[in-house]
Amino acid sequence: MTTRFQVIVLNGGSSSGKSGIARCLQAVLPDPWLSVSIDALVDSMPPSLRQSGDGIGFAPDGEVSVGPEFRTLQKAWMTGVAAMAGAGAHVIIDDVFLGGAASQEDWRTALAGLDVLWVGVRCDARVAAGREIVRGDRPRGMAESQADLVHKGVAYDLEVDTTRTESLECARTIATHVG
Amino acid sequence: MTTRFQVIVLNGGSSSGKSGIARCLQAVLPDPWLSVSIDALVDSMPPSLRQSGDGIGFAPDGEVSVGPEFRTLQKAWMTGVAAMAGAGAHVIIDDVFLGGAASQEDWRTALAGLDVLWVGVRCDARVAAGREIVRGDRPRGMAESQADLVHKGVAYDLEVDTTRTESLECARTIATHVG
Amino acid sequence: MTTRFQVIVLNGGSSSGKSGIARCLQAVLPDPWLSVSIDALVDSMPPSLRQSGDGIGFAPDGEVSVGPEFRTLQKAWMTGVAAMAGAGAHVIIDDVFLGGAASQEDWRTALAGLDVLWVGVRCDARVAAGREIVRGDRPRGMAESQADLVHKGVAYDLEVDTTRTESLECARTIATHVG
Amino acid sequence: MTTRFQVIVLNGGSSSGKSGIARCLQAVLPDPWLSVSIDALVDSMPPSLRQSGDGIGFAPDGEVSVGPEFRTLQKAWMTGVAAMAGAGAHVIIDDVFLGGAASQEDWRTALAGLDVLWVGVRCDARVAAGREIVRGDRPRGMAESQADLVHKGVAYDLEVDTTRTESLECARTIATHVG
Repeated sequence: MTTRFQVIVLNGGSSSGKSGIARCLQAVLPDPWLSVSIDALVDSMPPSLRQSGDGIGFAPDGEVSVGPEFRTLQKAWMTGVAAMAGAGAHVIIDDVFLGGAASQEDWRTALAGLDVLWVGVRCDARVAAGREIVRGDRPRGMAESQADLVHKGVAYDLEVDTTRTESLECARTIATHVG
Repeated sequence: MTTRFQVIVLNGGSSSGKSGIARCLQAVLPDPWLSVSIDALVDSMPPSLRQSGDGIGFAPDGEVSVGPEFRTLQKAWMTGVAAMAGAGAHVIIDDVFLGGAASQEDWRTALAGLDVLWVGVRCDARVAAGREIVRGDRPRGMAESQADLVHKGVAYDLEVDTTRTESLECARTIATHVG
Repeated sequence: MTTRFQVIVLNGGSSSGKSGIARCLQAVLPDPWLSVSIDALVDSMPPSLRQSGDGIGFAPDGEVSVGPEFRTLQKAWMTGVAAMAGAGAHVIIDDVFLGGAASQEDWRTALAGLDVLWVGVRCDARVAAGREIVRGDRPRGMAESQADLVHKGVAYDLEVDTTRTESLECARTIATHVG
Repeated sequence: MTTRFQVIVLNGGSSSGKSGIARCLQAVLPDPWLSVSIDALVDSMPPSLRQSGDGIGFAPDGEVSVGPEFRTLQKAWMTGVAAMAGAGAHVIIDDVFLGGAASQEDWRTALAGLDVLWVGVRCDARVAAGREIVRGDRPRGMAESQADLVHKGVAYDLEVDTTRTESLECARTIATHVG
């Protein structure tokens, strides 16, 4: 027997532990799952988009703003990810819902017709801010500014909290719902 | 005026310079282009697929073999990339046609209805093997074993050769055809 | 007033959290500290040493073995690190004492005459093994096989345990001892 | 028979190809050589030093400026690298002589008593600027602003030019002098 879910959406703030959970899910789930992320999308965009008002910007306090060209590519990417799942790939999506409920609505539209498990990845803002320092590769302040914001109005099938639970444990909890 | 092309496919062996050309294309083309690659696809697969006969394997001599589960995810990825382009993103695809003409046929099917510029990225096998050492992050032998293989029976709109031409120059040549 | 310590040695098994603590120490300590690590040393060696009996080997179960040429370079590196500290740089050393007490003795010899804070970084073997999966860039099994081994017979000024304490908290605890 | 040289210093501007040559030297030289670099030193410093006048700064035009705390750590690092070589490690140093002849003089002092092969790594400024785009991970402008500057008044045993010669070829040329 295999899972009925075709997509797992992990939503959480920066440094909440999403990508670690995604890697663990790939390790513990019996089927092979592709892992895609908003971070990988940003990396696949032209560097110039990271320095212009049309693209994505990181304020000194860690706030992230996105412009029209970023949004266009992001929408196309969402369509593409949905098509991958529709074509038979199991897909884990690791995203940051900067728009909260509106971001979820965008994904709902893109993923229409697919079986999706919506997972909220929580982490206490101060703990996430500490892990941001541990990682050393993220603009300071992102973790704290996004910790609550990204969950506003979002509906989940399941929530995990990495504040005091290891990523692998969180992944195992998610896996029991997938299976 | 903007380009009529929606997709640029760069095909070449390992260490032929495709991803460098892709980055340069993103820098020199006026519109924002997404850059996707087979390397990024492999990174988004479960690590276990890199160690089993069902996934992707790297022989000591650099030869690459792929199994059924890899192919399934790869086909779904191709469908997804095509959907991104169909949804309005300009996409540069950086791939290695291990199957030569058959690989191109797979892409032709996936990209049906889209305006595609097919670009062959050549590099002398011995020079590519040297650059593999320079990079230091690839299994030795891949460059040499793929240099000619990946171009067998493939039809291009344009070919560039990085043996004696800088990646940026190659990208500029490609850009004149895109524009 | 500045610290009397010139060197902080962090010893712990793979995936115990040493390098994260080192980054946090750099962030919380008032003076600038250089951070050096056995991982960086391995990266600075010729790739061929990672594939020969003379260098460093990783068994399928995660066990690490080192040969004579590795040891020669390692000893020279220890001498060099000590010289950096002697020349006025504050240095954090992030190491894995595969030889337990004997490894500490090697460092004691190299660091003779310098004020050293010896810190043990503990992490429950099963938790560390889980974090190894989260990271996804280490041979599986290293964390578990090293968790206890590296502390055998080693004397510390201070021990921290990342099993249930965040790296930043551990770093703050260490910082209070640094002065 | 083994080489009489204990240290190879590679000096050149950003994106001139030094680190690629260093990797190739490690591959072609019969003895194991450690490879250290100014880039690795910067990575081992606290991130805060990269954002303050006391540390290292990158101007929008690619110019690099260093402050007193950076210099202190750099001097200590030079002493440490010399000590590694003195303790028996063969060491390749990959540096950018922002101070030209004065930088060489600093290294001469640090490396006193050691057999050093001084190698200039040249690359046409425009070609290096193109490769900076290809790499995509360096501030734009560094390559061009450093191309000539770093060689001012520096005396070499040997110069190589990567403008039209592959890194592996350059490494082989250097290797014949190493002996």
